[in-house]
Amino acid sequence: MLVSEAGEFGLIKLLSQQLGIPYPPGRGAGQPGLRVGLGDDALVSQRHDGALIWTTDTLVAEVHFLPGRTAWRDIGWKALAVNLSDIAAMGGRPDLALVTLVLPPDFCVEYALELYAGLKEAADAYDVIIGGGDIVRGPAFAVTVALSGWALATRVGGIHVMTRAAARKGDVVAVSGTLGDAAAGILLLAEAASFEGDALRLRLAQERPQPRVTLGQKAVGAGVRCGMDVSDGLVQDLGHIATASRVSIRVEAARVPTSAALRQAFPSQALGFALSGGEDYELLLLAPRPVIESLIPGSGPHSIPSQRQRAKDGPAITIIGEVVDNDAAHVSVVDETGREIPLPHGGWDHLTTP
Amino acid sequence: MLVSEAGEFGLIKLLSQQLGIPYPPGRGAGQPGLRVGLGDDALVSQRHDGALIWTTDTLVAEVHFLPGRTAWRDIGWKALAVNLSDIAAMGGRPDLALVTLVLPPDFCVEYALELYAGLKEAADAYDVIIGGGDIVRGPAFAVTVALSGWALATRVGGIHVMTRAAARKGDVVAVSGTLGDAAAGILLLAEAASFEGDALRLRLAQERPQPRVTLGQKAVGAGVRCGMDVSDGLVQDLGHIATASRVSIRVEAARVPTSAALRQAFPSQALGFALSGGEDYELLLLAPRPVIESLIPGSGPHSIPSQRQRAKDGPAITIIGEVVDNDAAHVSVVDETGREIPLPHGGWDHLTTP
Repeated sequence: MLVSEAGEFGLIKLLSQQLGIPYPPGRGAGQPGLRVGLGDDALVSQRHDGALIWTTDTLVAEVHFLPGRTAWRDIGWKALAVNLSDIAAMGGRPDLALVTLVLPPDFCVEYALELYAGLKEAADAYDVIIGGGDIVRGPAFAVTVALSGWALATRVGGIHVMTRAAARKGDVVAVSGTLGDAAAGILLLAEAASFEGDALRLRLAQERPQPRVTLGQKAVGAGVRCGMDVSDGLVQDLGHIATASRVSIRVEAARVPTSAALRQAFPSQALGFALSGGEDYELLLLAPRPVIESLIPGSGPHSIPSQRQRAKDGPAITIIGEVVDNDAAHVSVVDETGREIPLPHGGWDHLTTP
Repeated sequence: MLVSEAGEFGLIKLLSQQLGIPYPPGRGAGQPGLRVGLGDDALVSQRHDGALIWTTDTLVAEVHFLPGRTAWRDIGWKALAVNLSDIAAMGGRPDLALVTLVLPPDFCVEYALELYAGLKEAADAYDVIIGGGDIVRGPAFAVTVALSGWALATRVGGIHVMTRAAARKGDVVAVSGTLGDAAAGILLLAEAASFEGDALRLRLAQERPQPRVTLGQKAVGAGVRCGMDVSDGLVQDLGHIATASRVSIRVEAARVPTSAALRQAFPSQALGFALSGGEDYELLLLAPRPVIESLIPGSGPHSIPSQRQRAKDGPAITIIGEVVDNDAAHVSVVDETGREIPLPHGGWDHLTTP
């Protein structure tokens, strides 16, 4: 069987079996020695003074970006940002990155330096150390970042993290920022569109994602125990939560936040991009309504925030649905009348998506 | 400039400058936030209850191995083993691995499963958890392992690790096992030789390296503070120590340990393979003579070890030279008369070696 036939998640399942690890991990199904094992945004390994969080992500030329269209500096930013987003999804504090480069012999040193300039921008912005790594020769450029971070410790020696397996019936589903911009941005990049005004916002969403590290820590501190980042597309990612938590989730389409830029550039496709576009790197947070509302800027008694306050508060947080059932693993999206909207093909598969 | 013109170490130097980090790291030159930074076998990050050690290494098809010649199970073993060797070189205890696969769409699932079987064999042999990782599509197979471990803690809250920068005049230079077998093995593999008897030993040295994790911990516990693993070739790797420690090192060619298998298969090339072949994954240990001698099996007063005792003691340890000067960074290899042997081209460069 070819890996393109098995698909990413089919292959992960087979490889997990090879290691003797259940996948997808059920509620409470653990991997010996780890607090959170394979199948979440990151691994969590308990330590005496907290817990280590580990994640890794790779960008391959021609697969994850088009070298002529995206600046190497932006690729460097993104290579770290996608990993920061995984730490954010656990509610952790990122701290140390290893970088592996696979370089063809005719790759320009200047490109590598630009890439590192972007890595450093992201590292400085998020207070992360780039430690070192590995450089090898290969047929096509790829950059792999492995990032470690720390989980917040509780007073009684436990740790606080957000996992995909902690959703419960009655939780509301919230998402940060807006969805779909990044998917629109990559379409515009593939079309070699000019980037001004709204289009530039969409391009930046694709090339300069802003991982929600501060929000993740705030959320876990406020008591949110279920979260993940939107990387493969809202519906597919909620499907991962539904499977891991064994719950059914209902999303109200009209509540899914999209940007004015996206609605203007792609009026009829905005919802589609938002539901299954991927690469948003916003956070999904699932918790009882009062916990989520405590995170929404200006939702308290003093409710009209200043411009400055909004910047300090971070991204908007929008409640888009709820966990409706505790038994079947299912995600539905409903319109204003409550009718289920038929969903397009799920989202991103790293091995079968052409 | 092309990366093949800059070379691996030229490129690392430029990228380090981009990050504002000195490279090669001088004695005592640190990277903010890290106990041991870029330029050693692994990174060391101090924690409240010890220190985290981090390393990563990648194997690319056609570059690091020939897919038709080496079994995928052996490639899996080696992908973890080369990282274990870096943790061994710090004297640490390995514990958690992340695996990233870059797979062409027409890659067979069965190969991936065999690869994972080999990874699991190595993980079980060295008591390491394989946590998870990333799977992406790409034009050629590559496997990246990021491995974390822990440094031994001292009683006063410090940590014990071996670095490349800790050699001092008067230290002796010791190496574990024998050198050159792996380089001979890859030559035989490229020639598609049949593997019986001695040739099989050379092949196993190439495909099933045995990282010296126990020895590394024993050495650091005995007080060795300078060490590294032999991955690029003895002379080149001693050159890294000479540069990092700013010392001159003299090796006596006649003392460099080679296997009978290597001497029989390649009588005139055995020394050459041992000096610059690479991929031995033995440990170099530099320390005052009594410290090194305390590690040599059977060197104490009860000196004739049984066969069983030898197996328990681990690999042979051979003193091959000494640190002769504290100022210039230089490595020389001398014959029995003390005359310097002209050295062939240094060792492995990941970007320029064809």
